[in-house]
Amino acid sequence: MTMNHRTPVTVIGLGSMGLALAGAFHDAGHPTTVWNRTPAKAAPLTAEGAVLAPSVAAAVGASPLVITCLTTFDDTRAALAPAAAELTGRALVTLNSGSPAGARETAAWADGLGARFLAGAVKNVPAAVGAPDTLLYYSGDRTVFDEYVTTLEVLGGDTVHLGDEADLAALYEMAVGAMLLPALVGFFQGAAALRSRGLEAAGMVRFAGKWLDMIKSLLPVYAAEIDSGDYTDGASSVNLFLAGAAHDAELTRETGVDTSWTAPLDDLVRRAAEAGHGEHSVAALTEMLKKPRRTV
Amino acid sequence: MTMNHRTPVTVIGLGSMGLALAGAFHDAGHPTTVWNRTPAKAAPLTAEGAVLAPSVAAAVGASPLVITCLTTFDDTRAALAPAAAELTGRALVTLNSGSPAGARETAAWADGLGARFLAGAVKNVPAAVGAPDTLLYYSGDRTVFDEYVTTLEVLGGDTVHLGDEADLAALYEMAVGAMLLPALVGFFQGAAALRSRGLEAAGMVRFAGKWLDMIKSLLPVYAAEIDSGDYTDGASSVNLFLAGAAHDAELTRETGVDTSWTAPLDDLVRRAAEAGHGEHSVAALTEMLKKPRRTV
Ligand SMILES: NC(=O)c1ccc[n+]([C@@H]2O[C@H](COP(=O)([O-])OP(=O)(O)OC[C@H]3O[C@@H](n4cnc5c(N)ncnc54)[C@H](OP(=O)(O)O)[C@@H]3O)[C@@H](O)[C@H]2O)c1
Ligand SMILES: NC(=O)c1ccc[n+]([C@@H]2O[C@H](COP(=O)([O-])OP(=O)(O)OC[C@H]3O[C@@H](n4cnc5c(N)ncnc54)[C@H](OP(=O)(O)O)[C@@H]3O)[C@@H](O)[C@H]2O)c1
Repeated sequence: MTMNHRTPVTVIGLGSMGLALAGAFHDAGHPTTVWNRTPAKAAPLTAEGAVLAPSVAAAVGASPLVITCLTTFDDTRAALAPAAAELTGRALVTLNSGSPAGARETAAWADGLGARFLAGAVKNVPAAVGAPDTLLYYSGDRTVFDEYVTTLEVLGGDTVHLGDEADLAALYEMAVGAMLLPALVGFFQGAAALRSRGLEAAGMVRFAGKWLDMIKSLLPVYAAEIDSGDYTDGASSVNLFLAGAAHDAELTRETGVDTSWTAPLDDLVRRAAEAGHGEHSVAALTEMLKKPRRTV
Repeated sequence: MTMNHRTPVTVIGLGSMGLALAGAFHDAGHPTTVWNRTPAKAAPLTAEGAVLAPSVAAAVGASPLVITCLTTFDDTRAALAPAAAELTGRALVTLNSGSPAGARETAAWADGLGARFLAGAVKNVPAAVGAPDTLLYYSGDRTVFDEYVTTLEVLGGDTVHLGDEADLAALYEMAVGAMLLPALVGFFQGAAALRSRGLEAAGMVRFAGKWLDMIKSLLPVYAAEIDSGDYTDGASSVNLFLAGAAHDAELTRETGVDTSWTAPLDDLVRRAAEAGHGEHSVAALTEMLKKPRRTV
């Protein structure tokens, strides 16, 4: 019999992400206990030697470190309710998506049970779990992070603690995620324009990729402007984008593609120019977003 | 006296980009003639040995290859008007931004003068001119491109001919550029959210950069779906983004940040789901953009 000094881990919730998490722990040699509302989903893991607990309370009781990956924070608290007593003194780490408010609520709930709490987020797809550059970020009880960081790094080499407030991971997730849909729809608009000319969208992939690299290289510059509040030294001005606003109407005229979704963006640029930011860096648009507008 | 076998080049328009273009040709050993409406701007080039022509007609007459970099296509034709006779039989290459219609108009005008015509675009900043990965694309007369490609590569190692129709470079430019403002405003929104919590925008740069890498890696997949029209096998569904639409209201509640500019995006996702694309790849949004909507 060999001794296993690796931290025993419990994973609760075996959807596509939970299965990947539990599999990574098991493959890394951690004694791994799992539980899922629909137990059949544990089959691939138990076939490899992971332990399926007969109840959620038994699952929580099996390890000092309990990781959940359910759909929402509400689902998480509901599923863990029968294990409330066992959570006392353990470390609970959630890895679902959710709102900052949901994270705070779950932190308060865990605190009431005497559990130490980290709320995390996996910034990648299940297939990327365990890869060296896979990013997971956590917020909440720093002592949990410090104690289990080596174990948590099994899930991805880029493992970060954002701060002591449990809602920070959810806040960053919302903040960082805000780029995704707009960038994609921008690409889809361009693709629709090329298709309208009988050209392949594949033909613009390389060029669009270069744009994304360029945008990436600009982010530190824009962040510094935003953090200092000094927009006077920018390379691309609000006025430059104001001139570009005409391109949307032009693209519609040229290709018949619907660009109407960009109207509020053009309006934002116009209002920034009106507010005196015309010659400032385009990052000054951030100032226009800081207050919600009254709906008209 | 040494012989110079490099193609003589004329550069017309010495704004920030034109200066960089002319400088690159001169540095690469091409006999370089320049002209600018405001001649004083040529000083840094003439100091290095480039020739400032006394008139635009003389400038055009000095080289078989004439490159213009003025603000618009209209400006270009206006500035070249006194050189109309000299353009006959020469290769004219425009490198300004502009609409496909402007490119077609300029192509027809050049054709009327018996000039061979390429309309190109520099996909980078002046400081990047001449770098191995700087992208320039051209469309129009393929024989001009083939004859002068080595010379054109002086401006950037990634030099591409998109097709024989002179408006393709402008079309690609509009198509590919459609991602820029939406992606930036997404980043600014996230930055505003973090600032509202007293956090630094700099703290999200690394995470946002990872998102951009991820988006870049997805573009070939989405392009293939768009080109085939088969959206049934997508990894991230329209419904997934439909669920995400609630995040915008949540972010505003949480941070006070204005997310109203995303309303048409959420509406686009909703309409795609209603049109039966719910379980399809999010790239199916392209189909919703192919026709302009009636303004309501
Ligand atoms: N998949 C991804 O690419 C990805 C990436 C990053 C983050 N995430 C996040 O990770 C979380 C899980 O995602 P997933 O893809 O694994 O989802 P999924 O495949 O739909 O699995 C959902 C899991 O939650 C369980 N569950 C939901 N409600 C429950 C409840 N009330 N009581 C008990 N169990 C409940 C399900 O149990 P049953 O099996 O019994 O239904 C299942 O184990 C989500 O918050 C998601 O946003 C996913
Ligand atoms: N700068 C960039 O980062 C960048 C990047 C990619 C593409 N571009 C494109 O390159 C083109 C030039 O940009 P730029 O940055 O060099 O602009 P710029 O610095 O404003 O220079 C504009 C040039 O056009 C000339 N011009 C404008 N209207 C004219 C007219 N009617 N007659 C004669 N000359 C005229 C100006 O002459 P004067 O000196 O006499 O005013 C000047 O040489 C634009 O289409 C721009 O979109 C620029």
